[in-house]
Amino acid sequence: MRPSKRQYDEMRPISFERNVSKHAEGSCLVKFGDTHVLCTASLEEKVPGWLRNSGRGWVTAEYGMLPRATGDRMRREAATGRQGGRTLEIQRLIGRSLRAVVDLQALGEMQITIDCDVLQADGGTRTASITGAWVALHDCLRWMEARQMTSVSKVLKDHVAAISCGIHGGHAVIDLDYEEDSSAGTDANFVMTGKGGMVEIQATAEGIPFTQEEFDALIALARKGIARLVNLQQLAVA
Amino acid sequence: MRPSKRQYDEMRPISFERNVSKHAEGSCLVKFGDTHVLCTASLEEKVPGWLRNSGRGWVTAEYGMLPRATGDRMRREAATGRQGGRTLEIQRLIGRSLRAVVDLQALGEMQITIDCDVLQADGGTRTASITGAWVALHDCLRWMEARQMTSVSKVLKDHVAAISCGIHGGHAVIDLDYEEDSSAGTDANFVMTGKGGMVEIQATAEGIPFTQEEFDALIALARKGIARLVNLQQLAVA
Amino acid sequence: MRPSKRQYDEMRPISFERNVSKHAEGSCLVKFGDTHVLCTASLEEKVPGWLRNSGRGWVTAEYGMLPRATGDRMRREAATGRQGGRTLEIQRLIGRSLRAVVDLQALGEMQITIDCDVLQADGGTRTASITGAWVALHDCLRWMEARQMTSVSKVLKDHVAAISCGIHGGHAVIDLDYEEDSSAGTDANFVMTGKGGMVEIQATAEGIPFTQEEFDALIALARKGIARLVNLQQLAVA
Amino acid sequence: MRPSKRQYDEMRPISFERNVSKHAEGSCLVKFGDTHVLCTASLEEKVPGWLRNSGRGWVTAEYGMLPRATGDRMRREAATGRQGGRTLEIQRLIGRSLRAVVDLQALGEMQITIDCDVLQADGGTRTASITGAWVALHDCLRWMEARQMTSVSKVLKDHVAAISCGIHGGHAVIDLDYEEDSSAGTDANFVMTGKGGMVEIQATAEGIPFTQEEFDALIALARKGIARLVNLQQLAVA
Amino acid sequence: MRPSKRQYDEMRPISFERNVSKHAEGSCLVKFGDTHVLCTASLEEKVPGWLRNSGRGWVTAEYGMLPRATGDRMRREAATGRQGGRTLEIQRLIGRSLRAVVDLQALGEMQITIDCDVLQADGGTRTASITGAWVALHDCLRWMEARQMTSVSKVLKDHVAAISCGIHGGHAVIDLDYEEDSSAGTDANFVMTGKGGMVEIQATAEGIPFTQEEFDALIALARKGIARLVNLQQLAVA
Amino acid sequence: MRPSKRQYDEMRPISFERNVSKHAEGSCLVKFGDTHVLCTASLEEKVPGWLRNSGRGWVTAEYGMLPRATGDRMRREAATGRQGGRTLEIQRLIGRSLRAVVDLQALGEMQITIDCDVLQADGGTRTASITGAWVALHDCLRWMEARQMTSVSKVLKDHVAAISCGIHGGHAVIDLDYEEDSSAGTDANFVMTGKGGMVEIQATAEGIPFTQEEFDALIALARKGIARLVNLQQLAVA
Repeated sequence: MRPSKRQYDEMRPISFERNVSKHAEGSCLVKFGDTHVLCTASLEEKVPGWLRNSGRGWVTAEYGMLPRATGDRMRREAATGRQGGRTLEIQRLIGRSLRAVVDLQALGEMQITIDCDVLQADGGTRTASITGAWVALHDCLRWMEARQMTSVSKVLKDHVAAISCGIHGGHAVIDLDYEEDSSAGTDANFVMTGKGGMVEIQATAEGIPFTQEEFDALIALARKGIARLVNLQQLAVA
Repeated sequence: MRPSKRQYDEMRPISFERNVSKHAEGSCLVKFGDTHVLCTASLEEKVPGWLRNSGRGWVTAEYGMLPRATGDRMRREAATGRQGGRTLEIQRLIGRSLRAVVDLQALGEMQITIDCDVLQADGGTRTASITGAWVALHDCLRWMEARQMTSVSKVLKDHVAAISCGIHGGHAVIDLDYEEDSSAGTDANFVMTGKGGMVEIQATAEGIPFTQEEFDALIALARKGIARLVNLQQLAVA
Repeated sequence: MRPSKRQYDEMRPISFERNVSKHAEGSCLVKFGDTHVLCTASLEEKVPGWLRNSGRGWVTAEYGMLPRATGDRMRREAATGRQGGRTLEIQRLIGRSLRAVVDLQALGEMQITIDCDVLQADGGTRTASITGAWVALHDCLRWMEARQMTSVSKVLKDHVAAISCGIHGGHAVIDLDYEEDSSAGTDANFVMTGKGGMVEIQATAEGIPFTQEEFDALIALARKGIARLVNLQQLAVA
Repeated sequence: MRPSKRQYDEMRPISFERNVSKHAEGSCLVKFGDTHVLCTASLEEKVPGWLRNSGRGWVTAEYGMLPRATGDRMRREAATGRQGGRTLEIQRLIGRSLRAVVDLQALGEMQITIDCDVLQADGGTRTASITGAWVALHDCLRWMEARQMTSVSKVLKDHVAAISCGIHGGHAVIDLDYEEDSSAGTDANFVMTGKGGMVEIQATAEGIPFTQEEFDALIALARKGIARLVNLQQLAVA
Repeated sequence: MRPSKRQYDEMRPISFERNVSKHAEGSCLVKFGDTHVLCTASLEEKVPGWLRNSGRGWVTAEYGMLPRATGDRMRREAATGRQGGRTLEIQRLIGRSLRAVVDLQALGEMQITIDCDVLQADGGTRTASITGAWVALHDCLRWMEARQMTSVSKVLKDHVAAISCGIHGGHAVIDLDYEEDSSAGTDANFVMTGKGGMVEIQATAEGIPFTQEEFDALIALARKGIARLVNLQQLAVA
Repeated sequence: MRPSKRQYDEMRPISFERNVSKHAEGSCLVKFGDTHVLCTASLEEKVPGWLRNSGRGWVTAEYGMLPRATGDRMRREAATGRQGGRTLEIQRLIGRSLRAVVDLQALGEMQITIDCDVLQADGGTRTASITGAWVALHDCLRWMEARQMTSVSKVLKDHVAAISCGIHGGHAVIDLDYEEDSSAGTDANFVMTGKGGMVEIQATAEGIPFTQEEFDALIALARKGIARLVNLQQLAVA
């Protein structure tokens, strides 16, 4: 039995609330159970220096956590004076994941920044961020399409979504909450596209190394979960 | 006529949503129209170094804005590596305002940190923060009371709330939104207690200096508005 | 009786020493009793990025304290690696106060930076800074006028000066020194123009809230004191 | 044909030079072809704050690159004032990988820091770092054993080594150099133990997503390569 | 002929104004011509960590320049977020120079920090700082002696003073002002004690290397100048 | 007798290993006994802002130490977030020393950065760095000459090398190792050219001041040692 009482292959309730920001070109409040992430997409008519005059655009992401998103209050990174390694790692992952399904040439020389800010954390903030960021990005492109600035279908080649899996109590389980994550033997994050292509795999043994069989079970679970997330994304933006 | 079509003395719709955070000891999502601030109160059993072994506690605040809380995306302060002057000024104001109604001796050697994070900004973020922070602080103290750690009525001596007023188009108006604020000739923020005592006044001329008469009109408006905010706080925590 | 033995409405001895810097275009060593601030005005033929090609100029201020300007040595902000909230707050206030009496259009695309460095502190450093900064700014403009770069009377629309007032021992008193400030119940700073227009009001309750009557008494005192400061400025630059 | 003319499953010449530092308790200059990393192990009789009085020790890693380790000179991170996201990500990976084979309880309340400094880079610096760090760690423990401070066999439970694999020109290839890495379609890093347990998997699609079959081919290659690396480690420390 | 019209071996007018700070235990405004440095000595009953419980004290220095001490306004180091290499180099030099004549054992476990802040710069700020710092240090020790905390003669073993010399227009000259310094071929700073012992020598060729003969001429000049400075120090503290 | 058993005027074994970097335009691993410094020269077709369009080039240096180059592990400066005063001081010295023998006009608008990274430290890291940096710079210029970008003989006017001397046990000794340096009474560094011109002298008394006679003995030793270093440089690049 999982601490969350869920089935091994059962994800938490997932929801996407769109247009939650008055200002952003695209926005989505994504919830994976008690993990709540506010994703906003901001369009800017400038690109990083190394892309200037290249005709190509850029999609990037930033990630942050409110200080009391977690059980114990964490120090505010703005006060600390630097973003931690975990923050930088996650925002690089979100950016890479989104770019895997974007045609930067078709976007043209513009930059879209997706901010993923965790309002409440209960495990799986990076996977919720990627999954919700896709919706915000989609809506930003639709906003642009409405202004004849681009075509959603040309720029956004596919869905992308992410889920965590882990070995808990000897079983492969999906979408771990904080309590499960803390006691899991292996922790893995998978990012895949709507067509089932793999974009990112990150698997880490906690304590004891994992076996090929365990890892195969994790991939299988992830594939199923991501298919469901893509389905929910489709419903959300329909 | 105000750009917002409101009467000169008409505030925006105000609401307090309590218990919005699974983790925080007290929390409140406060809305002044389209200005939305998430306030969380975090209890820690430690105090700043200069209070150690004094028997007295501390109440402090931190303030932040999500990068796309505003019309144009702002750089994330965690990425910039420092909190700006405006941020520091506002969080010092929030902390001082709350401490004006707290008996730090009665609190005992514990610290409560109120984080005010602006999810969406449309003018008046500091006044909304102070007003919502009081609710989060109240609920944190009630949480402590339920655990026999303190008594709300001994620690929290009064309400505290804040409102902005300004001279717009020659008229004293209350609770300016961003558009009104940008075109106002004078911008003032008032912090008062439930009993009508004054805690903080900050008034700034934009462009041309203001007169004694104009300032008196602003105070009068503020007094009325804050009485209403205190009433709404009372209803919210009842 | 005030700790300083002064009358309630008696300011400390005030003096302005001009041309104290060999290099600066304008400079003034201002003394409010034992509070000594060195103000220099530096002219640069550049403006902040957002003003480029606007035809408008800029006046800004920076504030600092020598480490041993105070009773206990403070850490040097350059060594700490960041300017504290109080420093940023004060330098923003000085800049806003000066700009309230400057016609930036008439100045043309140039920037004047006023550095206010506290050599010795005994309360009221921000009000002394503003009052002395006006003299340094005036002399910088006169320097420019001598070189046919501008006209003092077109750019500098009025005087601006500042004074602190507070409630001490139940009485409204003016120009508090450090000892009085530390024991005052309310602390307020007023910035006004030569014509009596109000530019900035900042009032803070220390301990218990203040009443409307108390605040009115503070304003009345401030108005009188600032009139005197403006008179002294006039004598100084005559 | 690979740009390096190597067989698909052919690693570069690998070497470990031990005792290269006069000062460090353990050290190793590891070479994977033209990628050269200097690994030093430093023993300190202190642990991070959260482990104090726990009886448990800690193994951690830091990673750096000399500015001209690469084709173009990179800015020195010490001059930039912060370690980049890539640096933090890699040093966290090295630390986790080593801890997977260390019994921290058996180590006792001491800390070993492995510094991995890249003298010359040609792809695969993180995998070379992990593989060489194990040797430096081993020698540090042997140094301690010689002083009756610990027992190598009790603390170091297994070997750990790492290798990169990728899809290049449609083929799964092992141990990519910089040129191959730059043109690879998928880039994966595997960390495994001497017994074949998996410690870390990181796989990233560059451009187009990868398939399950491709990923399976990468794992198979990695398993073979890591077995060889472990064998070379055994020879090196024999 | 020197640009300053001075004789080759003629120093600028030198003066020491003592007790210029209301708060500091010792203070001195030193002037070498138009170079003005405010030196304050602050006594603290704590020492750096590595001296705790050693029974020995510490003397250290910090150096800063007001932004408009120079011909062109320099960025404020507190705003930049770091002290420049030149600043760090100079304050290390001042500290070492003072410690050369202090018996740290006799001082006991206390720290004296000398702040040298350049109010106006015209060449030779580091030599003026050292020379004035000695006076501030002396007066701090006398302050302590008056309180039976120490004995000046036991702690302060000798005078220390500094002067710059250089090769200008083919001649060895002393105490260069900014204009002379900018066009000098060699720039040297000498720190010596009252008894003529050498504490620090720093000589730098600008453009072309200097010869042994030139260097010998610089030392000879310096020796004479420092003897005079020591004499002036004696008169100042008499 | 010196702790190192060397004669008073005997340097440690010196060696230069060239072309140690696959990427750098010039490189040299210099060893002064157990002090090992990796020097790389990087050519960039850009100059600092203040040299743009001047037709002149720039030669600069950066210096770093691997954390475990020393007996006790030092904190990594990239992790600390700033380069220490000693680091800045040394890299400024290396840059100045090299520029003393370079014709920046003849170099043309290009920049050469010499990175000196200490792999292992045993005293004299700055003098080894300067001496090895000259070889790396020479080889970079030769690399450019081979591509018809410049002429070595026109740009590089002379050799430059450096050595430390000190008073140890009452004797003037040369090329002190760490142990000797720690117990030396005076510590001096000399930088001279191939023709015997003096470029930099830095002498510091540790404990008691030094005399003119002692200093003369140090210079004489240094002159002899540097002549030998220049000879070794000639052999190395022949």
